[in-house]
Parts: sequence; C-alpha cells; structure tokens
Amino acid sequence: MEKLKPSTANSPPLTPLGFLDRAATVYGDCNSVIYNNTTYTWSQTHRRCLQLASSLVSVGIRRGHVVSVVAPNVPAMYELHFAVPFAGAILNCINTRLDARTISVILRHGESKLVFVDCASRALVLEALFLLPQNSQRPVLVLIADDTIEPLSSSLTVDFLDTYEGMVEKGDPGFRWIRPNTEWDPMTLNFTSGTTSSPKGVVHSHRGTFTITVDSLVDWAVPKQPIYLWTLPMFHANGWSYPWGIAAVGGTNVCVRRFDAEVVFGLIERHGVTHMCGAPVVLNMLTNSPKNKLLRNPVYLLTAGAPPPAAVLLRTEALGFVVGHGYGLTETGGIMVSCAWKPQWNRLPATEKARLKARQGVRTIGMAEMDVVDSESGLSVRRDGSTLGEVVLRGGCVMLGYLKDPEATSKCFRNGWFYTGDVGVMHPDGYLEIKDRSKDVIISGGENLSSVEVESILYTHLAINEAAVVARPDDYWGETPCAFVSLKNGLEKKPTEKEIIEYCRRNMPHYMVPKTVVFREELPKTSTGKIQKFVLRNIAKDMGPMQNNQSRL
Amino acid sequence: MEKLKPSTANSPPLTPLGFLDRAATVYGDCNSVIYNNTTYTWSQTHRRCLQLASSLVSVGIRRGHVVSVVAPNVPAMYELHFAVPFAGAILNCINTRLDARTISVILRHGESKLVFVDCASRALVLEALFLLPQNSQRPVLVLIADDTIEPLSSSLTVDFLDTYEGMVEKGDPGFRWIRPNTEWDPMTLNFTSGTTSSPKGVVHSHRGTFTITVDSLVDWAVPKQPIYLWTLPMFHANGWSYPWGIAAVGGTNVCVRRFDAEVVFGLIERHGVTHMCGAPVVLNMLTNSPKNKLLRNPVYLLTAGAPPPAAVLLRTEALGFVVGHGYGLTETGGIMVSCAWKPQWNRLPATEKARLKARQGVRTIGMAEMDVVDSESGLSVRRDGSTLGEVVLRGGCVMLGYLKDPEATSKCFRNGWFYTGDVGVMHPDGYLEIKDRSKDVIISGGENLSSVEVESILYTHLAINEAAVVARPDDYWGETPCAFVSLKNGLEKKPTEKEIIEYCRRNMPHYMVPKTVVFREELPKTSTGKIQKFVLRNIAKDMGPMQNNQSRL
Repeated sequence: MEKLKPSTANSPPLTPLGFLDRAATVYGDCNSVIYNNTTYTWSQTHRRCLQLASSLVSVGIRRGHVVSVVAPNVPAMYELHFAVPFAGAILNCINTRLDARTISVILRHGESKLVFVDCASRALVLEALFLLPQNSQRPVLVLIADDTIEPLSSSLTVDFLDTYEGMVEKGDPGFRWIRPNTEWDPMTLNFTSGTTSSPKGVVHSHRGTFTITVDSLVDWAVPKQPIYLWTLPMFHANGWSYPWGIAAVGGTNVCVRRFDAEVVFGLIERHGVTHMCGAPVVLNMLTNSPKNKLLRNPVYLLTAGAPPPAAVLLRTEALGFVVGHGYGLTETGGIMVSCAWKPQWNRLPATEKARLKARQGVRTIGMAEMDVVDSESGLSVRRDGSTLGEVVLRGGCVMLGYLKDPEATSKCFRNGWFYTGDVGVMHPDGYLEIKDRSKDVIISGGENLSSVEVESILYTHLAINEAAVVARPDDYWGETPCAFVSLKNGLEKKPTEKEIIEYCRRNMPHYMVPKTVVFREELPKTSTGKIQKFVLRNIAKDMGPMQNNQSRL
Repeated sequence: MEKLKPSTANSPPLTPLGFLDRAATVYGDCNSVIYNNTTYTWSQTHRRCLQLASSLVSVGIRRGHVVSVVAPNVPAMYELHFAVPFAGAILNCINTRLDARTISVILRHGESKLVFVDCASRALVLEALFLLPQNSQRPVLVLIADDTIEPLSSSLTVDFLDTYEGMVEKGDPGFRWIRPNTEWDPMTLNFTSGTTSSPKGVVHSHRGTFTITVDSLVDWAVPKQPIYLWTLPMFHANGWSYPWGIAAVGGTNVCVRRFDAEVVFGLIERHGVTHMCGAPVVLNMLTNSPKNKLLRNPVYLLTAGAPPPAAVLLRTEALGFVVGHGYGLTETGGIMVSCAWKPQWNRLPATEKARLKARQGVRTIGMAEMDVVDSESGLSVRRDGSTLGEVVLRGGCVMLGYLKDPEATSKCFRNGWFYTGDVGVMHPDGYLEIKDRSKDVIISGGENLSSVEVESILYTHLAINEAAVVARPDDYWGETPCAFVSLKNGLEKKPTEKEIIEYCRRNMPHYMVPKTVVFREELPKTSTGKIQKFVLRNIAKDMGPMQNNQSRL
C-alpha cells in the first residue's frame, strides 16, 4: 500500500482554468456574457480568452508576471479572469475607486508588467503612473474602450500600447494555454483595502482558487446555467470566485458598469436573473430605492462583508430576494463560512429568523476547520454565544500568504491556523457570529463590547439610515461608544442626540449605550462600500476624552 | 512570490470525512438514514460513527489496516463509509453476490484485519474464511444483525467477536477521529469485478475521494437536503461517492436491502425520493415491472456502467424519471464523464434525444482532461464520431493504483494518462461515446465493429428483453458477431433466429449483422447486473468456427 504514489495521471494541478474549455464544449452556443447590447457565447468567450492570452505572450508576458486590471464589471474584466492566467501570468484586479497614490503603491509593490485600464479610469491610472518613483519600471498600458461611455478616438489611445479589442483580434485562437507547473503556483494577487490603511497583497494559488470556486458552487447550491448578475465588483476578491464558478456551470454573466438600483431591477426583469451577490450596502440600496419592486421570480442574493442588520434583511426578503449570508475574506478568496439554513427555522417569527440569518454560520465543505479561540492562549472559547474570541481557519482556500511581507504572513499563520483578526462568538449550536474586527471592539470599563451589536440596534430606529459605532477615549472608562449616524431622507422631524440615546437605553444594556451621537449627511466609505471605521475612529479621538459625570448602570 | 509555500493552515489534507462533522452541526435534527422503521438523525449518525471508530481502535485496528464489509445497503453499510476511515483504516466493501472463493481471494489479497458481515452473508463469509490458506491470518468477524431478516440469537453470533450494534454501544462518542497524515493516504480499497476474471484491488486516496465526491455533487447539480434512495449498491465503487456526498448536502439516505421495483416505487412515494442511481438494468427493471407507475414528482435518476439502450431510456423518462447518463470506473471512484444536457436538445424528436443521451458525454469539472487515443501511437483520434480509440483520463479522482500489482498499475498509467481499456469515439461536438470494452470489439474481416452498436439495435426489436453480442471465431472472417438474446415474457409468437437476422439486415450495415442468434431464458450477469460477456464469449468460442457460405455485402 505504501508503494502507491501520486502520478501524472492522478495528480494534475488543481486549477479552475479548464472550466472554460469545458464550457466551450458543453455550452458553446449558450450565452456567456451580456453587457448592454453585446452578447457573447461560451465558444466566443473561450476563443477570445485564448486570443488575448496569446497576445499577452506576444508582448512579453511570461509565467509568474503580474498583470493588473483597473476596470468595473465589463466583459473584458470577466475574460481577464481566464486570459491572464491562460498566459501563465498572475491576475491583479485593482479597485477602480482607489486613489492614484494607492494604485501607484500597488503597481510598484506587485511589479506589474502590464495594466488593462478601463476608459473611465484612464486619468486615474495615468496619474498613478506619474506617481511611480523615477527609477521604477513602468508597466505597459492597454486600453479597455467602451463606446457606451466614450467613442474610441486616437487621442484616447495616446499612452497605450494597444486597445483590449486590438489585442484580442491579433491573438491566435489556437493558442494552448499555459498550465501551472504545480497547483501551488500563484494565480491571483489582490490587495486588501478598506479598514486598514496599508494594503497587503494577498496571493492565491491555482489549488486554492479551484477549491473556493467548487466549494462556493456546492455551498450556494448553484444549479446549471444560472443567470448571474454582476452586482458584486469582480475586483472585490475576484467576485468571491464566481467568475470561474459561472463558467463551471455554464451560466450567463450579466455585466453592469456600476450599481444602480433602478438598472438592477430592470436587468433582473429583462434577463431573468436568478443569482447575484453583494455587500449588505447593496441590500440597503435595493430596498431604499424608490424604484424597487416585487420580483416576479425569486432571486438568490448572497451577501457577506458585514452582518446585515435584521431590518434590512427583512425588507429585502419582502421584495422576493432569497438572501443567503456568509463570511469570507480576501485571504480566503471567497465565502467559506455560511449561514446554512435549517428547515425548522422557517417556522420562527420573522425577527427571529432575521437574527439567525445575521449569524455568519458554519464552515463550507471545502474548509477543513474553523474555530473561535482566545488570541493569547490559542484555546477554543466556550460555545456560549457570548465569549469573544478570534476567528481562526484551516483549509484549502486559505491564501498562500502576503506578497513580499513575511512578517505579516507569519503573524497571521500561527499554530497551524490562519488568524483572521475578526472577533466573534461560537453559539451553542456551532454557528459562528462575527462581533467585530478586533480593532472594532470597544473596551469600556474593562468590559469588551461589540460595536456591531450597538449598530444593529441603531438600525432598528426608523429614522436612521446608516450607523457606525467606534470607541471614544474616556478619562474614566478608558473608552466609551460613540455613534455616527446618517438619517433617512424626507423625515418630518429629525431626532436629537438625546432621543437616540434614550432609544438605546430602552433597547440595550446601559453599558453599551453610546455616550455620544454624531449626525452626518453620509458616513465615509471604502470603495467597496464598507464604512471606514478608522476614519471615524480618528474623528472620535480628535474629539478628545469625554468628561464623565454620568454614573454607569 | 517564489517564497510563498503551502503551510498547515492552507494545505490540510483534502478528505470528505469532515462532511459528517459539519452535517451533525448544520443538519443535526434532520433525518440522515431511513431503513424500514428505523430512522436516524445526522447527530445520531455522527455519534454512532465516532463510537464505532473508537471501538475499532479498541479492538486493535490501526492506521492503514484494511477493514472489510460484506453487506447490502443497510444503515451499517452507510455508517462504515465514515466510521472505518475515522479509525484511520481503509474501507474495503465487498460485493455480497460474489462467491466464497472470490471473497477469500479478496480478504487474503487485502490482508483484511476485520470483516463486518451482514447476517444474510454469514454462511458465505464463513465459507470464504474456511477457504483461506492454513498459514494465513484470519480476520476478526463482526455481525451486522437485522431483525427484519432474522432475530438475533446466541447461535447466530458464534464465530463473531461482537455484533455491529454491540461495537457502537461500547464506543466513545467523544472519540476524535484520526486524520490522514497526507491527502494521498489510502482511504478505500475496491475490487473490480465483472467482465474480467481476476479481480484487482483499486486504491483511492482521501484527496481522490474528496475530489470525486464534490465533483459528483456539482455535476449532477444536487441541491441541499435531497431524499436519496439507495438503489445503487454501496459496494459498487462506494456508491459512486454519494455516501460522502449526501452528508455534504445534508440529505436523507433511504436504505433498501435489495432491488425490487415494487418496493422502490413504494419508497419513492412514501419518502418523497428526489434522487437515485443505478445501472441501466435498474431502468429496465423499473419499466418492465407490472407495478410501475407514473411518478407524482420528478425523480432524478443517474445511470452509468453501460450505454442505456434508447428504447429503455424513453420508457423510463415516460414514467417521470429525469435520466442522467454518465461514465465512470471503479478506478475513478465515480462518474467523471457525463452527458451534460444542452437546452436546445429539448426541441429534438424523442429518439434523437435518446441517441444523444446515450452518449457518455464530457468530462466533469474535477477531471482535468479526457481524450480518445490510438492505443498504439497515443495520438488523439479524429473527432468524427466514428474512429475508434481508447479512452484516456487525467484528473484528481483517478485511483492511486492497484494494490500489490505494480505490473497492472504501470500498464494502465502511461504517458501521463490513465488508460481505461474502454473503446470509444469522439464526436465532432466533443462528446465521448463508448463503443465497447476493448475486448468487446469484434474484428470481422479486418473491420472493427462495436458489439454495443449491434446490441442497441437488437433492443429496438419489440420481442427482445436483453441482448449481448460477442465475437464467434470464423474461418473466413476471423470473427463474426454472435447475438445472445432473451425474449420478453408473455409473447404470443416468439421470433425465430432467421426473423431476428432479417430485422438486423433492415436496420444496420450488413457487415454488422449477427451471423448467429442464440436464445436464452436469461443472460448470465455479474453481481452488479452487468452481462458477463466473457461467459458468452467462451460459449461462442465453444460453438466452434462458423462455416461460411455467405458472401459479405
């Protein structure tokens, strides 16, 4: 028995790239990508990706090179998820909403050799290149033109090697794509954005990407040939792996340049959309839109990134969306903890159902282990739904590590676990609930309190549109909760700070009640729609310590 | 980038065993296994498997030991798919319909340490042990009692260490299951049976089993919580991986001791069965049963093992079964080529649809590559739907190799491929169609002809129940096709040999027409329901060379 070893026939590298070859065979005549009035079939998408990959090789892209793209969810963005790794290169999707300085840092850190630039991001990327140090190598630029935005003109293509379509046309459809040498070869590079200020480059292997892709299909029970609407940016952790997953099941990718609730409702109706993903802010935008409407057929909507407030969940499901909730990180390439629904929960009252669905849930089948541990001792916390601990993971879709950052890599890989930096509790039934990013825990009088819990109660206030709670320094308690809120439009009477605090007192333990409420027109957000707590935290810090004359109850 | 290497957190061994832990968390209160009047929940199944694994360790089973089971689809058989590898051991399921001599060969070859024996197979296994050579080590026996067959008595348990339930009861529910050291550790051992006479021990790793399991869920688009009826024996290539797959999706396993069409229709109705698998002979039995009935709800029926004749397919679908067709081998642990259906095919006439569905299809997403090659040169055959070649595979679910048989292992692993020994053609649209086992090709006058093709036409004859075509030696042509047929019951007038030959002449090229037709009450079958062509081939050989006075057209 010991003599049986893996061989070429049974251990070819796991990779999702072959899904496209297969889609071209099985679903060659079926729609692959739809964008405005452009429609491609799977055999066209397959051919276009091979052509583009061959052109990348022609212009000097080699195995292991990083190729970047700054674009929204247009067809080119979809194709690059296959075309770039087809050329043996590493795909680096860059958030279009970053500033030029951050983009220049990313391009330099990743040593990007070529950047595909959406026409709407032209000025941004040119500025980013301008900000690169004099002695650093400049990547070649390729323009993704889009005549629905701006007709192609020669003035537009200055600074660019070619256009995206030019490269597709010049390519060889008979190109044989470059297979990885091992399944651990890097395939994608994504920079974490958002709540921390220094972006880190997350590297995923072919094997990791294969695992999260297949896992995400099984966990969401995606049927064959779904109609998938791209409301989640593909530059956001590669659209949680669904660019590859939709090829695996021969679905249709409905592309859309930017999120707009009215447009989304129109596309759902026009194309018979069955599936879509998005951060909770997407649920908010859909339900708050004056153009929202009851869906004719259920649409499966998967959300992650932050616990959706119960009130928002209820409103979204009332429209006919079937909301799934999960948890993932850029470091896991997609959702690998999800709130698997139990049939008996359907009999519970709506608010109780929403409370259960707001929990992040259980590991998917591709994730070997998940636990909540004491960050110091590394021991599991009690399964009591209240003891806070750090979420740790072990499984095939955990990243290879951070690019050129051994310190950050070794800091999160400890004791055989990946430490997420997220704080949660384990419920008695084995379901995880995230309480906060570690830095979002407020320590008031030695008591750890979760800002997310306070926020979820603020969201139940009828006048509040958005809420974020951070720590404000306090001479006596160390920290106290400080709430930043934006109010809904068109209110007859706006609530005062005192009224909000009264409302909290009636609805939560007194030690959790915000001592300060700051009203804002809008809360500062990351480009992926997450509220930038670190900005608010700085504002709260600048407010200075609070004068305490209240006793705590 | 080169410095990023796999670590414990991102490369734990791929294995399907954790699916049961997860099912106990997510679906703890839901039905896992139903058998007659016994019903278990997923938390019970989980606990029982841990207890049994702990008992196995208590009686001396160690990592890498082989543990056998001779049982039909009873709950114990299901549980052993987790419990045996939970103990670190290798699961060896043995076909209950084998003879004692073959079982003794298997037990000796696998060096089995312990055998779980279904009460109905007690005499068979005791005889097999009696046939073991004097000097060889005898495995310990454990009895799987079943009071629906025979009430448990002390006379029954003579020769047995314990009963299955006794071991479950003695076990520790807090046992921590033994994880594989690497994902390449062997997990199952299955002996190929059937058309060849010398069984070979197929060894699959944890990784291979994980891959085929997840792959089989995606390819059949199995939803969450299906009701799965066990019409396919689990000893048949581990039920094509579905014992692990049904745990992954939290379904219900409806167990049944033996196939009986009336019982099956009853269980479908009683439990609301949604999914089942079986060899084409199962389709035959369902449709030919006088107790067959129109289904109230569609039942997904996956078939493989031989191309289902078009007529049988049509009859089965008319009852309300949604038939899927695939292709797999014991060496791939399940189905890894399947006839992915295209929506546009729904518009075709019924017979054309059946013809398309009889093709084996395209590789699943977990199989990296599949091809049809010339066995000599190793080059791909033309995609013309007619050039015969050998089917070769490369992918994560191909076995590790044959147990203690380096010659057979190296014979099938060549040029980086696994050579299946099956002969097929590649259609222009990239779909594979199996024409025959290599030894089933009849070479008549230098022309290769497929016995399966002749058979499929014989099946369209209204009087024919089953048909098998083999080569008969021929002085002039080398070989000629010889048909063995059994007729349907209750025919008013039985056709003659001449009439059958006439029928063939009207419906196939003349060189393919059988020169001999032999009528049989029943055709000889393997225990898994495959017609034993080697038996028929020997009969045809014994008939001696045919006297040829016909000229060939």
